[in-house]
Amino acid sequence: MADGRSVLLLNGPNLNLLGTREPEVYGSTTLAEIEAACAERAGALGLTLEARQSNHEGELVSWIQEARKSHAAIVMNPGAFSHTSVAILDALQTYEGIIVEVHLSNIHRRESFRHHSYVSLAATGIIMGLGAPGYLLALEAVAERLGSRG
Amino acid sequence: MADGRSVLLLNGPNLNLLGTREPEVYGSTTLAEIEAACAERAGALGLTLEARQSNHEGELVSWIQEARKSHAAIVMNPGAFSHTSVAILDALQTYEGIIVEVHLSNIHRRESFRHHSYVSLAATGIIMGLGAPGYLLALEAVAERLGSRG
Amino acid sequence: MADGRSVLLLNGPNLNLLGTREPEVYGSTTLAEIEAACAERAGALGLTLEARQSNHEGELVSWIQEARKSHAAIVMNPGAFSHTSVAILDALQTYEGIIVEVHLSNIHRRESFRHHSYVSLAATGIIMGLGAPGYLLALEAVAERLGSRG
Amino acid sequence: MADGRSVLLLNGPNLNLLGTREPEVYGSTTLAEIEAACAERAGALGLTLEARQSNHEGELVSWIQEARKSHAAIVMNPGAFSHTSVAILDALQTYEGIIVEVHLSNIHRRESFRHHSYVSLAATGIIMGLGAPGYLLALEAVAERLGSRG
Amino acid sequence: MADGRSVLLLNGPNLNLLGTREPEVYGSTTLAEIEAACAERAGALGLTLEARQSNHEGELVSWIQEARKSHAAIVMNPGAFSHTSVAILDALQTYEGIIVEVHLSNIHRRESFRHHSYVSLAATGIIMGLGAPGYLLALEAVAERLGSRG
Amino acid sequence: MADGRSVLLLNGPNLNLLGTREPEVYGSTTLAEIEAACAERAGALGLTLEARQSNHEGELVSWIQEARKSHAAIVMNPGAFSHTSVAILDALQTYEGIIVEVHLSNIHRRESFRHHSYVSLAATGIIMGLGAPGYLLALEAVAERLGSRG
Amino acid sequence: MADGRSVLLLNGPNLNLLGTREPEVYGSTTLAEIEAACAERAGALGLTLEARQSNHEGELVSWIQEARKSHAAIVMNPGAFSHTSVAILDALQTYEGIIVEVHLSNIHRRESFRHHSYVSLAATGIIMGLGAPGYLLALEAVAERLGSRG
Amino acid sequence: MADGRSVLLLNGPNLNLLGTREPEVYGSTTLAEIEAACAERAGALGLTLEARQSNHEGELVSWIQEARKSHAAIVMNPGAFSHTSVAILDALQTYEGIIVEVHLSNIHRRESFRHHSYVSLAATGIIMGLGAPGYLLALEAVAERLGSRG
Amino acid sequence: MADGRSVLLLNGPNLNLLGTREPEVYGSTTLAEIEAACAERAGALGLTLEARQSNHEGELVSWIQEARKSHAAIVMNPGAFSHTSVAILDALQTYEGIIVEVHLSNIHRRESFRHHSYVSLAATGIIMGLGAPGYLLALEAVAERLGSRG
Amino acid sequence: MADGRSVLLLNGPNLNLLGTREPEVYGSTTLAEIEAACAERAGALGLTLEARQSNHEGELVSWIQEARKSHAAIVMNPGAFSHTSVAILDALQTYEGIIVEVHLSNIHRRESFRHHSYVSLAATGIIMGLGAPGYLLALEAVAERLGSRG
Amino acid sequence: MADGRSVLLLNGPNLNLLGTREPEVYGSTTLAEIEAACAERAGALGLTLEARQSNHEGELVSWIQEARKSHAAIVMNPGAFSHTSVAILDALQTYEGIIVEVHLSNIHRRESFRHHSYVSLAATGIIMGLGAPGYLLALEAVAERLGSRG
Amino acid sequence: MADGRSVLLLNGPNLNLLGTREPEVYGSTTLAEIEAACAERAGALGLTLEARQSNHEGELVSWIQEARKSHAAIVMNPGAFSHTSVAILDALQTYEGIIVEVHLSNIHRRESFRHHSYVSLAATGIIMGLGAPGYLLALEAVAERLGSRG
Repeated sequence: MADGRSVLLLNGPNLNLLGTREPEVYGSTTLAEIEAACAERAGALGLTLEARQSNHEGELVSWIQEARKSHAAIVMNPGAFSHTSVAILDALQTYEGIIVEVHLSNIHRRESFRHHSYVSLAATGIIMGLGAPGYLLALEAVAERLGSRG
Repeated sequence: MADGRSVLLLNGPNLNLLGTREPEVYGSTTLAEIEAACAERAGALGLTLEARQSNHEGELVSWIQEARKSHAAIVMNPGAFSHTSVAILDALQTYEGIIVEVHLSNIHRRESFRHHSYVSLAATGIIMGLGAPGYLLALEAVAERLGSRG
Repeated sequence: MADGRSVLLLNGPNLNLLGTREPEVYGSTTLAEIEAACAERAGALGLTLEARQSNHEGELVSWIQEARKSHAAIVMNPGAFSHTSVAILDALQTYEGIIVEVHLSNIHRRESFRHHSYVSLAATGIIMGLGAPGYLLALEAVAERLGSRG
Repeated sequence: MADGRSVLLLNGPNLNLLGTREPEVYGSTTLAEIEAACAERAGALGLTLEARQSNHEGELVSWIQEARKSHAAIVMNPGAFSHTSVAILDALQTYEGIIVEVHLSNIHRRESFRHHSYVSLAATGIIMGLGAPGYLLALEAVAERLGSRG
Repeated sequence: MADGRSVLLLNGPNLNLLGTREPEVYGSTTLAEIEAACAERAGALGLTLEARQSNHEGELVSWIQEARKSHAAIVMNPGAFSHTSVAILDALQTYEGIIVEVHLSNIHRRESFRHHSYVSLAATGIIMGLGAPGYLLALEAVAERLGSRG
Repeated sequence: MADGRSVLLLNGPNLNLLGTREPEVYGSTTLAEIEAACAERAGALGLTLEARQSNHEGELVSWIQEARKSHAAIVMNPGAFSHTSVAILDALQTYEGIIVEVHLSNIHRRESFRHHSYVSLAATGIIMGLGAPGYLLALEAVAERLGSRG
Repeated sequence: MADGRSVLLLNGPNLNLLGTREPEVYGSTTLAEIEAACAERAGALGLTLEARQSNHEGELVSWIQEARKSHAAIVMNPGAFSHTSVAILDALQTYEGIIVEVHLSNIHRRESFRHHSYVSLAATGIIMGLGAPGYLLALEAVAERLGSRG
Repeated sequence: MADGRSVLLLNGPNLNLLGTREPEVYGSTTLAEIEAACAERAGALGLTLEARQSNHEGELVSWIQEARKSHAAIVMNPGAFSHTSVAILDALQTYEGIIVEVHLSNIHRRESFRHHSYVSLAATGIIMGLGAPGYLLALEAVAERLGSRG
Repeated sequence: MADGRSVLLLNGPNLNLLGTREPEVYGSTTLAEIEAACAERAGALGLTLEARQSNHEGELVSWIQEARKSHAAIVMNPGAFSHTSVAILDALQTYEGIIVEVHLSNIHRRESFRHHSYVSLAATGIIMGLGAPGYLLALEAVAERLGSRG
Repeated sequence: MADGRSVLLLNGPNLNLLGTREPEVYGSTTLAEIEAACAERAGALGLTLEARQSNHEGELVSWIQEARKSHAAIVMNPGAFSHTSVAILDALQTYEGIIVEVHLSNIHRRESFRHHSYVSLAATGIIMGLGAPGYLLALEAVAERLGSRG
Repeated sequence: MADGRSVLLLNGPNLNLLGTREPEVYGSTTLAEIEAACAERAGALGLTLEARQSNHEGELVSWIQEARKSHAAIVMNPGAFSHTSVAILDALQTYEGIIVEVHLSNIHRRESFRHHSYVSLAATGIIMGLGAPGYLLALEAVAERLGSRG
Repeated sequence: MADGRSVLLLNGPNLNLLGTREPEVYGSTTLAEIEAACAERAGALGLTLEARQSNHEGELVSWIQEARKSHAAIVMNPGAFSHTSVAILDALQTYEGIIVEVHLSNIHRRESFRHHSYVSLAATGIIMGLGAPGYLLALEAVAERLGSRG
């Protein structure tokens, strides 16, 4: 059974470039810095955090499948797969824990093909446009929800 | 000039019914309870909060216009006007402070006419699907942003 | 609690001009005449009637909200707001009584932007194209439904 | 020439199953019961009624053609042919009497392919969502219109 | 095998009303007059003519099927079935003779749902907007084509 | 009540031409041969089979209605009516037995107007593109399902 | 009856901010300055001018209704309501005087949701993209039209 | 005033290549041969014929304008301009004589961008898919119409 | 370099017919009268005017190209080319002077294919629906703009 | 060259979860059980079976490429890749053997983005909505087809 | 017959302005310089080159028609006519030589109405976004293709 | 930093099958032959070449990311991923060197879902329809661009 306080932090394709890629859109914080800040915040909230990133849709699908047994929540920035991956949506729909979708930028102010997210169809909640701190808010939302159950 | 720590909390049409209207969608917390929780959290974050609700598009437009001189940020749940009001969008586009759009439910899991929000075109960030605690996260996002400027 | 025989008759924008506006489309009966005829028919059916008209979307929203406590049914001609107001739809979806939508003309024989009605998504029944007598039929439908419950 | 007080009641495909088919959508009254109630109400209104049902589009077209000489009004529930039959629309457009379209359910709250009705393009008026009593209201509308001419 | 000079003249739903239905659109010539004029013109062109009309899609389908063995050409005014009948299209696609589609009016100057004809996908040629004489031109086209083969 | 092992085999418009119509699309087996093969396979599976074909939408609607009392399953190739008949869909939605939709060809590799099937909205299962043997597989599916209930 | 030389100048939502809101789009002239310039030009043209602005759709609807008795022409910049208000369109369609729609910017060079104007469906003429002087040209158009009648 | 028996035969772009261009689509008859056959048929029908071809939209517009004074009918194969030229449509809409649009092929069996013809919005009648003889049928239609007036 | 007070007046296809073509849409003033009135008004405004009309898209493109060196502004009624000519749009986009697009009628109240204008994407301002006087207002707009620069 | 009786059974993303994922949609049989049943049925039909599953689009592409040399048929449930993978479609289009697409559920009764399958554009046949036994029917179809060739 | 090594270089509307028009989009090389560079490269490749430019669609159509007898290949930058000219497409479809379409800019990164090119439907190959050198690459492609035939 | 003369040649899914897959569409040259020819041409142009192919979207994303440090240009045939991969687009948008997209066939003459390429939104230039030599032209374009900078 899933660890009742464990959170899986997933980042999708190209998010490994954070801090170097189009900083006017995505900011200058690196993924490592975000993961460190998340781990710290998770600790403060009494959560444990496992962080992973992949450019491979299939790998993300498999990690989500595995999370069913090990994590109480998924915080996920699906990157470009938001807009194209029904496979990730299907994996998330088999997941019974909390799902918070995070986007660094406000995708509704970008190209029209970025306005639709398959992941949103499975997400509990969505946080976007708030930059790297959006991940921390997602962890707070998870903690708030887990607390209200526990 | 705008008060550097003052936040305007705006709620749109029918949100005065919160707690009584379709609780399976919107939860059982009343608007008064949300506003009280927001005031408390604002205080903890060193922010001041002014909370208003209206069923009138024109009134919301006027309040946003006035906020240009008095508030450093707007946290807004535009309700149904999200989907229909270009006038509110125009008012928000004249506002230079932080704008965080909040929705209690995940609008992408509801009817298709609720998937598009004009307000999102002007918002700094968006938080949805996280229920009443989503307002508190919005205040944290505002505090984080104001802090990083101050 | 709502009065078990009380009906709220709501007319939307520009219906105050009835009898003078485009009579080839809407007929020559005035709104006052329609309200009087409705009151008379309501009396004959053992119903009480309260009639209101507004050009303000927000005012109609508020009246619908209030009707939750005071009226067993709403007979509503939303006029132009049929096609544009999600706020009125949301208010109606919080209302648990009978809702009959009335249009004087057959909106499917007019411009294409008049073919869709948000109000229809919440209405119990719809009567259109039958002119001023359509309101009286709506009252009969309400009486029939209330009778079959009482 | 058409009998000035005669009404043709037409029901389209599958309406012969009323009372047994999807009662949560269409109610439990049978077509025979509806036709009997209509005959009674017609009598009370000084109208004569002829009732027919067919699963064949061509048969309905022919009956509408014949009604041009024999009936002052048509009350029609076209069932599924509402959405697909231009032939019935064409027949109705050759008919100069009153046409009232009736649907038991509110078709705007069902699948999107049921939102459009070709018959509505020829109908004088439309009544929907009010169940079996909707037919009786249609007869009243016919009587009211015939009276205002006679 | 099909008679090398035999033509089947088919008219679809409501064309039995020609001369009485919307004469400003369809003219004042009756179907009997058209069929007589066609028989006369066919004779002059050395063709034999069989004329049929039906309001039933299935009947038209069956007649087209039978024509495969008996007629060298079909001249068809499908009426409203032009726009809705894939079954007639399928029947025509099994027919190897000449097919000329005729419309009395110019369907491209009418409602948009009349602009598309499934029958046109199978037709050799199309003649429209020329009124009753359009049928005679169709027979001439058939004669010209048969002659160029014979 | 329906015979627990009885299957109704329905074929729609133009399928009476099988073996002669566009054999490169539909194969060279005739409908009689298919019906015979189905009867034989049905016997082997312990099922009884009744086979009918019609070019008339209304006739198919009526047969489906009647099957509610007499057959445990319907195997149906709706032909062109797949794409145009809401009336058949409605009849099938009143049917509580097993429905298997069969198409000889893969309709997704043909014209775009053949890609949508109303019948699929009511079907239990769909088999297409496998030619005449597809009917036999449908019978096996029926037998498998009936067996798992019995 | 309407004053034969009186013009109602209406400005819609957010136009009270003119001169301060997005000056690169709308210019730096304030609404008060525009109204003053219009009054002066109206005087020179022998017209009287009444100027009003509102952020409320319902208020604009009511003012247009009242203008039927008092003003010979309406010069209107509907702002954001151009794109969303059928209620204003309906009010304008009851108005029999001259209607000139004015936009400061060329709306066809902005976001696609600004390309459509309901008001244009009722307007006599449209002037856009010419900044504040566009209002003065509208007054000249009104004077020219009134003169050609008087 | 226009000569009461004079016909202008217009052919649009690339039709000067007839007989050499894609003969499987357009046949092997040259434009000169078609014009000669038309002249001969015109003579037999008591009509005079003037034949012109152009690859220039503007030239065709000018010729149609001039025809208002000199020709009682226009027989026109607009070629590719059918699908793209509003200017030719506008010129034809100023023409009060008979307009017959001719296409050699059945444009509804070709690419979708060829299915729409602006010229059809102004044409009296349309003849397509019948090859070069279609021009002769157009002349007969003109003669029939002129005769019925004279 | 362009003459700082010189205006090029361009009229597109079929505008040479003004005064004779569909006067209920376009009025009864001829193009010559409009050009004369424009020359007079231009003189009064201290502008010089050169007026040209063409039915040829290419000719209009070339004239616009040449105007880059000789005229400070273009006043253009593109007629039908508004809706179809990207070439004219491209030519206008190379022009750095003032561009005012004029339409005699309100194109938004006509057929839907007239609602879009490529020229509007390059125009400074647009004036429509005001008839022939619309050209004079365009000249005033030009004078106002040139004056504000000079 | 491909083994004339060898079948490759491919399952796409998330199908490894069968039996645990949304059993109300996909049933309770596991993938291992399906593969075992398929192996048994293949044996009975004289076929050999190789079964693979992947969450990686690229892996499925490579396996299909390799199957060109080793397998006479592919039975494939592409899962979510049905709707999004042109790469798998391209791989299948290079494959010359039999392709049977299988879906456990009837995808036409689910969300609209599941109605389209790229794989269907390359498939010989399609079987859906029949649950796990659908795979066995696919094997029978393969055997029937291989037999009719051998 | 066409000269086996002769290439026709065609440039469409506004390309005569190259080097002066929007240099940030189209570069600063003039058309004369491009034609000279092409002539030089053609010589080096053993090709002869004829270069023409026109703002007239009809002229380009005629030149393409003539090229059928004189040139083995066409290198064409259709400019704005790419997006609007079916007449040019038709002319190109009668041309049996090599056709290379060239665009200076990448049209897929510009306005959406520039994303579609009718010319692409007839082109052998397409080169875009590479500026003036793109023409030289087109000549190399022609030489490569002619060489592989010769 | 990137090697100023180094080019990465990327080929997407199924391009490893070149020469064997649908040769009528893609030609008979193998990928190895193309890569060898590219290496030779690169050498002649003073470029170094690294060639890779993958069926995995994620692998291509990673290679593009790495190229930011090592290659001055990417020549890429994305195959099917052109039409579906936003992840590859995002990776390319982080790349600051030259990007030339190559397609062997002219994708605009194939199925409509192949007409759109996400990669084109990031590409400097595009070459298609010219077969294997298109890659060599791409290298020439790269050399020309690098030379013009160096």
